[in-house]
Amino acid sequence: MYQLFIANKNYSSWSLRPWLLLKQLNIPFVEQLQQFQVDNYATFRQFSPTAKVPCLHDGKTVVWESLAIIEYLAERHTGVWPTDATARNYARCAASEMHAGFSTLRNVCTMNCGVRAQLTNPPPALAEELARLDELWQQGLTQFGGPFLAGAAFSAVDAFFAPVAFRVQSYQLALTEPSLTYVQQLLALPAMQDWYQAALAESWREPSHEAEIGLYSKVIADHRQPVASSKND
Amino acid sequence: MYQLFIANKNYSSWSLRPWLLLKQLNIPFVEQLQQFQVDNYATFRQFSPTAKVPCLHDGKTVVWESLAIIEYLAERHTGVWPTDATARNYARCAASEMHAGFSTLRNVCTMNCGVRAQLTNPPPALAEELARLDELWQQGLTQFGGPFLAGAAFSAVDAFFAPVAFRVQSYQLALTEPSLTYVQQLLALPAMQDWYQAALAESWREPSHEAEIGLYSKVIADHRQPVASSKND
Ligand SMILES: N[C@@H](CCC(=O)N[C@@H](CS)C(=O)NCC(=O)O)C(=O)O
Ligand SMILES: N[C@@H](CCC(=O)N[C@@H](CS)C(=O)NCC(=O)O)C(=O)O
Repeated sequence: MYQLFIANKNYSSWSLRPWLLLKQLNIPFVEQLQQFQVDNYATFRQFSPTAKVPCLHDGKTVVWESLAIIEYLAERHTGVWPTDATARNYARCAASEMHAGFSTLRNVCTMNCGVRAQLTNPPPALAEELARLDELWQQGLTQFGGPFLAGAAFSAVDAFFAPVAFRVQSYQLALTEPSLTYVQQLLALPAMQDWYQAALAESWREPSHEAEIGLYSKVIADHRQPVASSKND
Repeated sequence: MYQLFIANKNYSSWSLRPWLLLKQLNIPFVEQLQQFQVDNYATFRQFSPTAKVPCLHDGKTVVWESLAIIEYLAERHTGVWPTDATARNYARCAASEMHAGFSTLRNVCTMNCGVRAQLTNPPPALAEELARLDELWQQGLTQFGGPFLAGAAFSAVDAFFAPVAFRVQSYQLALTEPSLTYVQQLLALPAMQDWYQAALAESWREPSHEAEIGLYSKVIADHRQPVASSKND
C-alpha cells in the first residue's frame, strides 16, 4: 500500500496535490501526516531526501517531488492525465507552469485554509499572475468543455491548482466569473471538504507559517479550532 | 517538423535542456532563436503563452514549459527517460527537483557560458544546495552505474542538469570528484560543445543578464566574441 507523507493540512499546499488526486481516483493509501516544526529538517529527512513534503513511499521506492509523484501514479493508474493527447498536453504544460511559477501568488497569498484575510499591500506582480492564471484556466475550460480544466473528468492538472482554490477563498482573489465557478467546483469536491475540515480541526500553529500571512494582508477571520494548549492562554 | 523556440545560448539555461535532449536523441527540429531584449514580453508572447523559452511547436500544438516538453517527447520517442522503472523514477524526481528547486544556485551562479567568475559573497544557502546536488548525483551515479545520472545512456535527467555543468565551469564550483567527472562528461558531449561555441560566438549582450553576474561574483575572464557594434566602442 502506498504511504503518502504530508504536513499540516492547513498550510501544506504541495501536500494537497497528490493527496487530492489519490482520493479523487479512489487509489488506497496510508496518510502519514508530519507536523511542521520551526526546524523540521532532521525529521523530514527521515522519509524524504529533500526534507520536503509530499513524499510517496511504494514499498522501498521513494518518490519525492509532487510532479514526479503524479507521473509515477500515471504509469500505474488510469485517470491521472486525460486520455485525449491535446488535453493531456495542456494539462502537463499547466501543471508544470504551476510547479515552477506563480511565485508571487504562492508567497503573497500563502495557503492557510482556515483563515480569511484582506490583502493590504499586494505587489504589482500579483495582478499579473492572476491575469495569467485566468487566461490559462479559460484556455482549458473553453477548449476541453469543462467543468474541469482538461475536460469532463478531474485530473492531475486540477489537483495542481487545488491549493489556488483555497487561496482564492482565503483572500477573496478577483478572478473572472468562469474561473470563480471553477474554484467553487473544486472547493465543493468531497475530498476537498474533507481536507478543509481536517485543516480547521488542527490545533497546531507553526510560527513562520502564521507570520507569512501578515506580510501582505490583515487577518479578518479565523475559522480554525482554537489552539488547545498555548502557554499564553 | 518540430520547431524549438529558444533564446541566447550564452544565457538561456532553460532553453538548453530540451535542445540538448533533441540533439542527443537525434530528433530533427528547427531551432528558432530569439534574442533576449530588455523587455521581450510582446515578442516572446507571439510564440509562447508564458512569454518564456523554451517553447516547442509541433504543427498547431504548442508545448511550453521544459518539463512538459520532455514528457511530450517521451510519449513520441524512445530514450527520453530510462526504460528501467527505478531509474526512470529517480530521473523524474531529480528533474522535478531541479525544475522548482536549487533557486540559490540558479540566481547566484546565473548561466553565462562564456564568462569565468570568482564568487565574492555567496549566500550560505549556496553551499547547502551544492551539498544536496552532490548527494543527488551520487545517488544516481552509484545506483545505476553511470556514467550518466540514470545509467549508461544520456536521458532527460542529464539534460535537466546540463546548465549546471556550465555553471560549475564558469564559477569553479566545489563538488566532489565523481560529480566533477560527471560535469566533464557533460561538457565533452559534442552537442554541448556546439552549444558552447555558439554561445561564445554571440555578439549580443543583454544588460540585465550581464548585471546579474556581478551581484555575487567578480568576472575574471570573458571568452566571448567581443561586442560588434556597441555605441560605447
Ligand atoms: N517542489 C516540491 C515542493 C515541496 C515543498 O516545498 N513542500 C513544503 C511544504 S508545502 C515543505 O515541505 N517545506 C519544508 C519545510 O517547510 O520545512 C514539490 O513539488 O513537491
Ligand atoms: N519553468 C519554465 C522556465 C522558463 C524560463 O524561465 N525561461 C527564461 C529564460 S531561461 C525566460 O524565457 N525568461 C523570460 C525573459 O527573460 O523575458 C520552464 O521550465 O520552461
